[in-house]
Amino acid sequence: MEHKPIYYSEYLQLDKILNAQAPESSKAGIRADDEMLFIIIHQSYELWFKQIMHEVNIAREVFRQPQISDNSPELMNVVHRLRRVTLILQMLVDKMDIIETMTPLDFLDFRDLLRPASGFQSIQFKQLEAALGLKFEQRFGQNYYTSQLNEGDINRVKDSEKEISLLELVNNWLERMPFFDHSSWQQVDNEHQSEHPFWQQYKDIYFSTLQPEERQNDVGFNMMFMNDKEYPAERRLSPRANRHALFIMLYRDYPLLQLPYELIGVLLDIDALMGQWRSRHLNMVKRMIGSRIGTGGSTGAGYLKSAMDSHFIYKEFAELTSYLIQRNKLPELDDSLKQKLMFSN
Amino acid sequence: MEHKPIYYSEYLQLDKILNAQAPESSKAGIRADDEMLFIIIHQSYELWFKQIMHEVNIAREVFRQPQISDNSPELMNVVHRLRRVTLILQMLVDKMDIIETMTPLDFLDFRDLLRPASGFQSIQFKQLEAALGLKFEQRFGQNYYTSQLNEGDINRVKDSEKEISLLELVNNWLERMPFFDHSSWQQVDNEHQSEHPFWQQYKDIYFSTLQPEERQNDVGFNMMFMNDKEYPAERRLSPRANRHALFIMLYRDYPLLQLPYELIGVLLDIDALMGQWRSRHLNMVKRMIGSRIGTGGSTGAGYLKSAMDSHFIYKEFAELTSYLIQRNKLPELDDSLKQKLMFSN
Amino acid sequence: MEHKPIYYSEYLQLDKILNAQAPESSKAGIRADDEMLFIIIHQSYELWFKQIMHEVNIAREVFRQPQISDNSPELMNVVHRLRRVTLILQMLVDKMDIIETMTPLDFLDFRDLLRPASGFQSIQFKQLEAALGLKFEQRFGQNYYTSQLNEGDINRVKDSEKEISLLELVNNWLERMPFFDHSSWQQVDNEHQSEHPFWQQYKDIYFSTLQPEERQNDVGFNMMFMNDKEYPAERRLSPRANRHALFIMLYRDYPLLQLPYELIGVLLDIDALMGQWRSRHLNMVKRMIGSRIGTGGSTGAGYLKSAMDSHFIYKEFAELTSYLIQRNKLPELDDSLKQKLMFSN
Amino acid sequence: MEHKPIYYSEYLQLDKILNAQAPESSKAGIRADDEMLFIIIHQSYELWFKQIMHEVNIAREVFRQPQISDNSPELMNVVHRLRRVTLILQMLVDKMDIIETMTPLDFLDFRDLLRPASGFQSIQFKQLEAALGLKFEQRFGQNYYTSQLNEGDINRVKDSEKEISLLELVNNWLERMPFFDHSSWQQVDNEHQSEHPFWQQYKDIYFSTLQPEERQNDVGFNMMFMNDKEYPAERRLSPRANRHALFIMLYRDYPLLQLPYELIGVLLDIDALMGQWRSRHLNMVKRMIGSRIGTGGSTGAGYLKSAMDSHFIYKEFAELTSYLIQRNKLPELDDSLKQKLMFSN
Repeated sequence: MEHKPIYYSEYLQLDKILNAQAPESSKAGIRADDEMLFIIIHQSYELWFKQIMHEVNIAREVFRQPQISDNSPELMNVVHRLRRVTLILQMLVDKMDIIETMTPLDFLDFRDLLRPASGFQSIQFKQLEAALGLKFEQRFGQNYYTSQLNEGDINRVKDSEKEISLLELVNNWLERMPFFDHSSWQQVDNEHQSEHPFWQQYKDIYFSTLQPEERQNDVGFNMMFMNDKEYPAERRLSPRANRHALFIMLYRDYPLLQLPYELIGVLLDIDALMGQWRSRHLNMVKRMIGSRIGTGGSTGAGYLKSAMDSHFIYKEFAELTSYLIQRNKLPELDDSLKQKLMFSN
Repeated sequence: MEHKPIYYSEYLQLDKILNAQAPESSKAGIRADDEMLFIIIHQSYELWFKQIMHEVNIAREVFRQPQISDNSPELMNVVHRLRRVTLILQMLVDKMDIIETMTPLDFLDFRDLLRPASGFQSIQFKQLEAALGLKFEQRFGQNYYTSQLNEGDINRVKDSEKEISLLELVNNWLERMPFFDHSSWQQVDNEHQSEHPFWQQYKDIYFSTLQPEERQNDVGFNMMFMNDKEYPAERRLSPRANRHALFIMLYRDYPLLQLPYELIGVLLDIDALMGQWRSRHLNMVKRMIGSRIGTGGSTGAGYLKSAMDSHFIYKEFAELTSYLIQRNKLPELDDSLKQKLMFSN
Repeated sequence: MEHKPIYYSEYLQLDKILNAQAPESSKAGIRADDEMLFIIIHQSYELWFKQIMHEVNIAREVFRQPQISDNSPELMNVVHRLRRVTLILQMLVDKMDIIETMTPLDFLDFRDLLRPASGFQSIQFKQLEAALGLKFEQRFGQNYYTSQLNEGDINRVKDSEKEISLLELVNNWLERMPFFDHSSWQQVDNEHQSEHPFWQQYKDIYFSTLQPEERQNDVGFNMMFMNDKEYPAERRLSPRANRHALFIMLYRDYPLLQLPYELIGVLLDIDALMGQWRSRHLNMVKRMIGSRIGTGGSTGAGYLKSAMDSHFIYKEFAELTSYLIQRNKLPELDDSLKQKLMFSN
Repeated sequence: MEHKPIYYSEYLQLDKILNAQAPESSKAGIRADDEMLFIIIHQSYELWFKQIMHEVNIAREVFRQPQISDNSPELMNVVHRLRRVTLILQMLVDKMDIIETMTPLDFLDFRDLLRPASGFQSIQFKQLEAALGLKFEQRFGQNYYTSQLNEGDINRVKDSEKEISLLELVNNWLERMPFFDHSSWQQVDNEHQSEHPFWQQYKDIYFSTLQPEERQNDVGFNMMFMNDKEYPAERRLSPRANRHALFIMLYRDYPLLQLPYELIGVLLDIDALMGQWRSRHLNMVKRMIGSRIGTGGSTGAGYLKSAMDSHFIYKEFAELTSYLIQRNKLPELDDSLKQKLMFSN
């Protein structure tokens, strides 16, 4: 079957892409040469947000399955795509250099013409945060939703927040990991998971490695891993998922755990880069408008600062690091479990 | 006068921007998840090419004037904008990382569906090369014009090539510089420019600094700066422009020469980055399709390699570096010329 | 006079440089392949801190002069060197990628062997902060000085803190700027600087541009610029310096103000990059050791977080941005002042 | 057992590192403020070359074993370390920005004092090229060895060239891969490897995918993969290694082939970055000294250009890309082979 010959500009729909820049300053008869940059950089950000959503959606599609075969390339595919997302985010962060070449005075030439639009109105960015795992109740500036977004956009974001997030899916996938279900430990595991001999042993070793001034970590360990009744409701990873994630971090030298280990790493990378993006963005806004009110009515700098401190999505993975021990003190795994984690040949 | 309230997504025309991705693989009912990336990265490149053209056109607009006042901010504006162009180009180069995450096998999933489109068909890139100063006769792959471009696009490129380029404008601006026209040297200068006492003196000092094995530079110096009858026709900068550019490089410590010096530097930066872009692009094509024929019918790698070696636009500025001497050997300028190069206070 | 022939490895003293890596793990007979990376990256950081200090010291040397001639290349030299510092800092920030390839478990292999050393003990970094303008009383973690540094190092830092900083020198240089001293306004200026007609006029225009919700800036303006008796003692720029810096930001299109404008910009860039460095560093520490106590006894993450919020040195320049107005509303300067800001030709 | 308390500056031997900068200009009583930068950037490069050698040596140590167990973390370790090498190389490339802030005139201030030293004398860089797989006979500028290096250094490089390189080790490891040795195909495989049914089948499919104008690839295929008697002696990968590398690229979705696939990719990344490094270096030299003779006596630019074209070490892996086919046309593997490539569970 033949397809119509493809031509570059048609394939890329450049008639749309390159005719979507209509500076307000031109309409107002004012010369403000930097408004083109302002438009194009934001359009470019939005294009890339679409791409990131595309990748994150593929990742979610994989994790939505009840089971992922270790022999399918699916987990590898997820890690591959999320690693790509980190490169994209890195580029979006670095690209801030370009908008920073617009000086405050140059921005003032057309800033007032943009009221009351604001970067807060980027729906894709909010959808991305939601897809990754940010909940509405964790958001800073919830009141801006109604004051700055139109109804259609509010609904689009709300809908995204209702979907199961990557964080939830990863939590569920971690919970399903059968590390200790195949063995004689099974029975114990089901009833009193926290007292599974492996974890009891691990806990003892862990405490023996603490410096005296670190003994407070005692409480932390029980809370994080031991199915405590008082496990804080706001935490996103369950104790079972915490244990399995820690297990992955500890025994990542086994072939089966390599990809899971990389997955955790790349989620942390994404978080770190989203943080860098907010931090660079904040700094840019400060230099551009100081502490003045943003075009949308919020104090741009204030919003970004607060979001920066509270919008970390995967920080619970980072916290696990506190509970690692030295490799040479790791408990030896029993043979049947080892078999599960290795190639047969 | 009131303006209509602006809303982010309308201002950025996101309905166009975010609805311009129609993967051929979807149309063909094939799953090729990476085609989205392929589309979006190219669209993003095209957006940025538009921005670069915007900046280069402002630069040309400034230089098209018969005179640029030293007290206007125009030259500063040009340098500022071209510096921004270097940041954009740097980002385009770095961004290659992202497309390189698409593996050859992933590309093969949809590659055949794109025939006979090819990156060669990016008209904006060709227009940009033309605006910067590349002439049709210097182009590699001239025959691809007719085999790969449609008639409208050929004409668009041709039209761009007819416009006066930034290189020509800078050459003319350099020629107009009145460094030696204000003095008693004027008369000499007009008739036998090459024998102007300053340049004779400079030439003597220059030769005294050469190592024995560098004496071949003798010929070069006369050719480059001395209004030689045999000045090669293919050179883009005239001997007079060469002299003035060299003068700027040598005496850049004077306030008036700072911006001209930066201008030359930023043009070289642009060239270097265009070179990096081609080089990275070439490397990427090699890894993606090896030595196979590109979708457009050319050997992608072959084209890029040849373009890489021949499309340097500002290399004549780089060549001037061979003719610098040490600062402490520079001829002292006469007082009236110094005055011209300094602030009055 | 002949000099001894130079040989690369001797010139660079590679016998010292390449024989200065003695992993503690090797001494302890433990295999910890990543300790080499840990050593080399820190040595590389220290090399670059030395280079940054070199550049900052040249900048201070220039500003220590009672007067800088507008026709000397000195200010250009300062801007050039500080711009280089920003490139170095950018590289130090980006380089964090490399140390982040060391996983927490790999670090644990040798971490205990390094006690009680810590990154806090980098004296050059503290000296650099002091040279740029950070005062001891602004530092977070002052108590760590005595608990973590030896006496020689405490003294080295204290001595640096006694030297006049770049921030103070720039403040003094701004104060000396004679923008309004040459005119009939002089007399007024000396006695009631705050009521100089230019600033009165500017203030009126500024307030007319504020949105209703921004009226609080009223107080700010008077405080920042009007020689208020209640000017906060902790501020590092005087009201007079604030006025002159704002003037530079507003009238930067005049040739004489270009370099001063770039100077302010590059100081802000340095601050932003130091902030990025702390932020990346913090993130890296969090991933590496979580919330555990650092090898030196402090909570690494806690220290870095606090330093990040309080060690911004040039933020008072950034705050000026709040007081800009649109270019087309700028008061016209009187002719004699304009003359001062332009080339004579 | 207690160890001596560690102190940052002693651990890092900062007394050596920070006292190893002795500018020739200072000795000569000339002020050349940029010589410090020149020294420090080169020292920093050398530090990082040492680190890269450290990683490459660990990789070689792994591959020197007769067998690498699929269940050991060794191959993962190699990929991890080589990926780190790419980050280091990327940083070395980017860092070129910093040295480029030194202008030609600033370099001329001290350039003559450095004769006849030259960057060619970096022994570590040559050792690195050798360790990666560059042979003396492939080197450009062999005559510079005797004219520019002292005898001790010549011997150090020669010794490195005698060691088995990473390229050779990877070739041997590829050759050992038992993809088709376990099956009934074994016998055929030993005698007439080229006629193994899998490869015959693959070849047929491959040719069916070629465009008419690509039929020349016919010869290439036989030459590359079919144990041809006329296999060119200068090629570094054997036909058997080529086949196995291609197999890895094609079937990388199987768990066992993921790391081998990543290994090939990271080797290509290293090559590409070494190429970028040479290209940036070349461009920098051109801007710094034009076409003048380098301090060591060679034409710096000429040497770098030639090295750039000929020193690609892993290009034979890149060439394999030409022989890929679309995933949906891949021959199905037989079950026993599949088993070998998957986890047992």
